[in-house]
Amino acid sequence: MATIKDVAKLADVSVATVSRVINKSPKASEAAITAVTQAMQTLGYRPNANARALVSQSTNTIGVLVGDVSDPFFGAMIKSIDNIARQHGKHLLIGNGYHNADSEREVIELLINNRCDTLIIHSKNLSNAELIAFAKEVPGMVLINRFITEIADRCIALDNHRGSYLATELLIKNGHQHIGYICSNHDIEDTAQRKQGYLDALHAHNLIAPQSYIEYGSPDEDGGELAMTNLLAKAIPVTAIAAYNDYMAAGCLSVLEGNGLTVPNQMSLIGFDDGLIAKYLHPKLTTVRYPIQIMAEQATRLAFQLATAAKQLTPIETLDSTITHTFVPTLVKRLSVTEPR
Amino acid sequence: MATIKDVAKLADVSVATVSRVINKSPKASEAAITAVTQAMQTLGYRPNANARALVSQSTNTIGVLVGDVSDPFFGAMIKSIDNIARQHGKHLLIGNGYHNADSEREVIELLINNRCDTLIIHSKNLSNAELIAFAKEVPGMVLINRFITEIADRCIALDNHRGSYLATELLIKNGHQHIGYICSNHDIEDTAQRKQGYLDALHAHNLIAPQSYIEYGSPDEDGGELAMTNLLAKAIPVTAIAAYNDYMAAGCLSVLEGNGLTVPNQMSLIGFDDGLIAKYLHPKLTTVRYPIQIMAEQATRLAFQLATAAKQLTPIETLDSTITHTFVPTLVKRLSVTEPR
Repeated sequence: MATIKDVAKLADVSVATVSRVINKSPKASEAAITAVTQAMQTLGYRPNANARALVSQSTNTIGVLVGDVSDPFFGAMIKSIDNIARQHGKHLLIGNGYHNADSEREVIELLINNRCDTLIIHSKNLSNAELIAFAKEVPGMVLINRFITEIADRCIALDNHRGSYLATELLIKNGHQHIGYICSNHDIEDTAQRKQGYLDALHAHNLIAPQSYIEYGSPDEDGGELAMTNLLAKAIPVTAIAAYNDYMAAGCLSVLEGNGLTVPNQMSLIGFDDGLIAKYLHPKLTTVRYPIQIMAEQATRLAFQLATAAKQLTPIETLDSTITHTFVPTLVKRLSVTEPR
Repeated sequence: MATIKDVAKLADVSVATVSRVINKSPKASEAAITAVTQAMQTLGYRPNANARALVSQSTNTIGVLVGDVSDPFFGAMIKSIDNIARQHGKHLLIGNGYHNADSEREVIELLINNRCDTLIIHSKNLSNAELIAFAKEVPGMVLINRFITEIADRCIALDNHRGSYLATELLIKNGHQHIGYICSNHDIEDTAQRKQGYLDALHAHNLIAPQSYIEYGSPDEDGGELAMTNLLAKAIPVTAIAAYNDYMAAGCLSVLEGNGLTVPNQMSLIGFDDGLIAKYLHPKLTTVRYPIQIMAEQATRLAFQLATAAKQLTPIETLDSTITHTFVPTLVKRLSVTEPR
């Protein structure tokens, strides 16, 4: 493989000149740029990205931590980050946290060790204290789908409470008075916020919400099936269900179908996320839209601003103030909600 | 931020000794390792991954090119690669080719420039010649979902023809004689192979396959809707449909439903891929399973073997011979196929 010395020899310049051309130094002359570029092409020489990164102390990669890249929710998030990153000539280094603290920590350490000066972090399992420490170490780090008061200007979050409140209120407005809730059993803030949104909407409309109306399961299709089965077994007069997310709603749907209960005529059902599967379910699922694309775009823009400001010692107060830090979900009305019989 | 000099000073050793400890040189003494590790922790010093990569001329990242990370097919592929990569202490650098040649080339160049010595490449738009050239440059590069004769031992591919043949044969065995085909309009080898599988299955059973039985669209839900609409408009006596993939089948389903045609009673339908949406469709989609997970695992194992062999100058013939290079799809029977009325 050709070395930098071979390039210098063929171009008839010094190694230092080749280095200046590769690193786009303003000191490189037009003649040197032409000669070196031609020699590099002739020899098939690739300037080493590691060597260039050492010189500039940063890389052209932006680090991303997601829960699990095979979940289309994170796929959509990564795609939005990639769109913005490409506009800045950056590429993605991606790690999966697999919803556990050790993996999340390991990935963040890896990204920092690889000198990513821009990080988009989706962490649900590390403590506030640990994430604050990472944020202090990396000025260009932004948290997505998480809100921590001490670093609120580094967070792009969703108002989960509001989403669940809207979902429950839609069922109430359709005339339902006995509304069950299919809750996640993952101990993360989203779980508590979404459940509270359901309870507060009922309370605001003077409806009862006994503990027996709430069932728990893992936040996936199996968990939805289990929770729905348990809810049905209790023979309570529920006519509508709000689910923690669309996957749990899909699990509810198959249990209801298996038990001869038609959605929406015998049971109304509303999901949360408006993920890929929502519109393929039968009936098409009424749900709450999680605007992950625009959130991911804004998180990436914010991270670039913060990283650049840190290099130039710009005060954060002078940054673009058009960034929205807390997004509000909206309703997507399809075919799974109607009036009670 | 602490430098390597600060670490050397605090540990009371030379910079060269610190470097030996960081790079796990066998020349580093136990005492030096203890002193340097402690000094690094005290100062919060992070050995620079770029500097380490320069020394070893390789990185701890494995490069992956996919079509579009927001498609769950590629999400599943990446997750399988990540599982194997983690076992080797490696992490992923991921690029999207977005189904066009320029982006695919740009991503591969980026991955090579970042000194990824292991590459898993899903490229449908670069020419054979260009991919052969890249494969020669990077001994640890493996192509997934593509077969090129000259570098057959670097390819992990699917027998698309066989999958489509099986799908069509299932319809024939159910008694269908007039079978339509919903074809992709993307000019890639998968398109031609799957269409030929359909034609060959019909031919083998002495059935007619006039051109009018085939309609084309983009390989997504919209394309499926368009092609199905065009097929219905021709008023031909088709009783069953084989679709290029599950997304196109989903588009067919909604057009059939919109036109009052029940699946499977009035029209049988079979997809291809067994992607995330197949089991959520109504009726649950009978389809052909694309074993992307095991293919991605084998591609990753093969890439590591090839990269290691290149470093150690091991002849390729001596490598693990348990790698399957051409995978065969299987049928997944659900509820969208039955006998004609």
